[in-house]
Amino acid sequence: MHQALPASRSVIALLTDFGLGDGDVGVMKGVIAGIALHAHIIDITHDIAPQNIAAGAWVLASSYRYFPSGTVFVCVVDPGVGSTRSAIAVHAGTWFFVGPDNGLFSYIYAGQSTHEAVILNNPAYHLPQVSPTFHGRDIFAPVGAYLASGVALCELGEQVDPTMLQRLNVRQPVRNGSHIEAYILHIDHFGNLITNIPLTLVPDVFTSSRVQLSFPTISRVVEHRRRFFAEGNDLQPFIYADSSGNVGVAVQNGNAAQTLGVNLEDSVILDLFE
Amino acid sequence: MHQALPASRSVIALLTDFGLGDGDVGVMKGVIAGIALHAHIIDITHDIAPQNIAAGAWVLASSYRYFPSGTVFVCVVDPGVGSTRSAIAVHAGTWFFVGPDNGLFSYIYAGQSTHEAVILNNPAYHLPQVSPTFHGRDIFAPVGAYLASGVALCELGEQVDPTMLQRLNVRQPVRNGSHIEAYILHIDHFGNLITNIPLTLVPDVFTSSRVQLSFPTISRVVEHRRRFFAEGNDLQPFIYADSSGNVGVAVQNGNAAQTLGVNLEDSVILDLFE
Amino acid sequence: MHQALPASRSVIALLTDFGLGDGDVGVMKGVIAGIALHAHIIDITHDIAPQNIAAGAWVLASSYRYFPSGTVFVCVVDPGVGSTRSAIAVHAGTWFFVGPDNGLFSYIYAGQSTHEAVILNNPAYHLPQVSPTFHGRDIFAPVGAYLASGVALCELGEQVDPTMLQRLNVRQPVRNGSHIEAYILHIDHFGNLITNIPLTLVPDVFTSSRVQLSFPTISRVVEHRRRFFAEGNDLQPFIYADSSGNVGVAVQNGNAAQTLGVNLEDSVILDLFE
Repeated sequence: MHQALPASRSVIALLTDFGLGDGDVGVMKGVIAGIALHAHIIDITHDIAPQNIAAGAWVLASSYRYFPSGTVFVCVVDPGVGSTRSAIAVHAGTWFFVGPDNGLFSYIYAGQSTHEAVILNNPAYHLPQVSPTFHGRDIFAPVGAYLASGVALCELGEQVDPTMLQRLNVRQPVRNGSHIEAYILHIDHFGNLITNIPLTLVPDVFTSSRVQLSFPTISRVVEHRRRFFAEGNDLQPFIYADSSGNVGVAVQNGNAAQTLGVNLEDSVILDLFE
Repeated sequence: MHQALPASRSVIALLTDFGLGDGDVGVMKGVIAGIALHAHIIDITHDIAPQNIAAGAWVLASSYRYFPSGTVFVCVVDPGVGSTRSAIAVHAGTWFFVGPDNGLFSYIYAGQSTHEAVILNNPAYHLPQVSPTFHGRDIFAPVGAYLASGVALCELGEQVDPTMLQRLNVRQPVRNGSHIEAYILHIDHFGNLITNIPLTLVPDVFTSSRVQLSFPTISRVVEHRRRFFAEGNDLQPFIYADSSGNVGVAVQNGNAAQTLGVNLEDSVILDLFE
Repeated sequence: MHQALPASRSVIALLTDFGLGDGDVGVMKGVIAGIALHAHIIDITHDIAPQNIAAGAWVLASSYRYFPSGTVFVCVVDPGVGSTRSAIAVHAGTWFFVGPDNGLFSYIYAGQSTHEAVILNNPAYHLPQVSPTFHGRDIFAPVGAYLASGVALCELGEQVDPTMLQRLNVRQPVRNGSHIEAYILHIDHFGNLITNIPLTLVPDVFTSSRVQLSFPTISRVVEHRRRFFAEGNDLQPFIYADSSGNVGVAVQNGNAAQTLGVNLEDSVILDLFE
């Protein structure tokens, strides 16, 4: 009934909001090594803002396509740990996703075919003692390791209709002709502002005669465009094509968020002129 | 004379206070890869507060049991590097511990049988040049890699009586009937407060009719109890069973340390009422 | 024509200014795992100050010798990404270096024989789509992975004369008799100050009767010397031999940068008295 699984499932990618200061991520890796010694464990990030499911979902969305087929993603941003929220494993596209059923995989469901999903209610694949506060260690790490060792998804628990899985109410940008209402989805390590506008929605952003990106809350407007960071010599903020696939705003050798005074989730309006 | 060694010793777990900004951790891993290319290197954390041996000892204590038998722990919180403090390797429980003899392994000695310990005075297993300030690179990383490659502990140096190894004077909580005097041992990434009270000392903490956790220095009292973070809907701080095995205090979707104004090592008093 | 390559090229060491919060480093590792699943990926650091090529060059310089022969270093501090700056791979000493041609490898060229260098202009070894803003993902990670898989350097692109590669204008300290003018090259995680004075330039720094290290901009002088951090008991800043091979200044169990009020690139003058 369920799909044949990819032959090679030896990469486990981790994404959490645990930080690196407490040893929790190390403990998850210790658990994995005890089950799947030869798995290659790769950190996506552990610095998702605490309990910010939407932020975790977006970083995962912009990362997972670059991992090999068969990669098992173990993702834990889990304010509801211990509650009635389900723990799940999902086979979508050519990858596997393990974590809480709280919307963390929303972009995966939107972007890939979901072949099979299970509720992780088979305790044979958990640690013998499951705490009510650290399922990353007690459920998600061992389940990810068993998946990477070749255990079939359907062994891990009861199948569930993928359409019943939790989804975030992700705000999509609205384009009315040449006018797009959007917001700041992510501010990266360099202070670059990543909007929620996919470049595919605005194929004309670099070819139209003029563009205007406005921040209504702070009365700032950005009109410059660059193909790459070092294209000019001035310190004006500019619009560029971020490597995530969305429209971004940067300052050369500077920090656009600080320069402009922009915060996460601030509104932006993009107008394109022919 | 010494114990047979576990067959598989290919996981090396690292814990230091080096941070990740300087390349020192990377250099240790480079040294390990040159000796034991196929070792699986896992970071527990490198963000122990600088030179805080007690903090490092506790993070190690709450982590090591989750690693597979035979794991070699290379731990460096080492204010005395270059002085007459000894460098040691210890076989305790089913694991190996390599680092300075300064109390960093206190909880290991208390919780496991110590089969064998050696002073690392055989320079054949060190880098050719040993600096007086970076034994993590010059002694502990290569020794850990040789252990992971199957070198016997007794080859690494002179045997030492395990009872002579340095121990921290760890303050244990005192229970007088239903009254326990304790302190804050750790504040985690989410701002949760971890006390030094093991849940095994207070099996009645969730069943007694009422409990009171007091912070005498700030005149704050916590009385709520939850089994998991999302059990209620209010923003009151609550007592919970931390996944480390100790009594903790948290605020749902918040930071208990900031909310209460509590600092590391602050005193706490727990009273249980039938 | 080009050198025989080392037999084992399975370690890939990464150094970037990407931080660990955004998933970019994880994505690079995902790309590597898809090409060279059995490569051992080691992080040197990802916390180089944003776009500070000189800082990245120095951390690489103080690290690379500790990695095994054949290690492929993928280094990305790249403010000019997308511009006409070249992407290069270099075989120098017994190692390989992949990154932008912007001076990041200056210390490598100065310290090792450079056997061969190529411009990375063969798109067969890049991702199918190369963005103008993230060559770490689209060019450097796959090229590093192919090198680690045994692809010959000359397959990756057009050979280039190594003497034509970009070099930073690194300020070398000047010794006039017993007087050395220098500056602070690095401040480490502990607040230790690392000068740009190699210990080989001042073999007499610990044997001369008296030394004086002055910070002219803040009118502070350090005269104490220690062989290791815990050699004394006072809180005076002292001169020591840093494990990087340069003269350093530290405070026992303290932070010399904060204690002295010294910043990166501040001038220092070292005077030695017989």
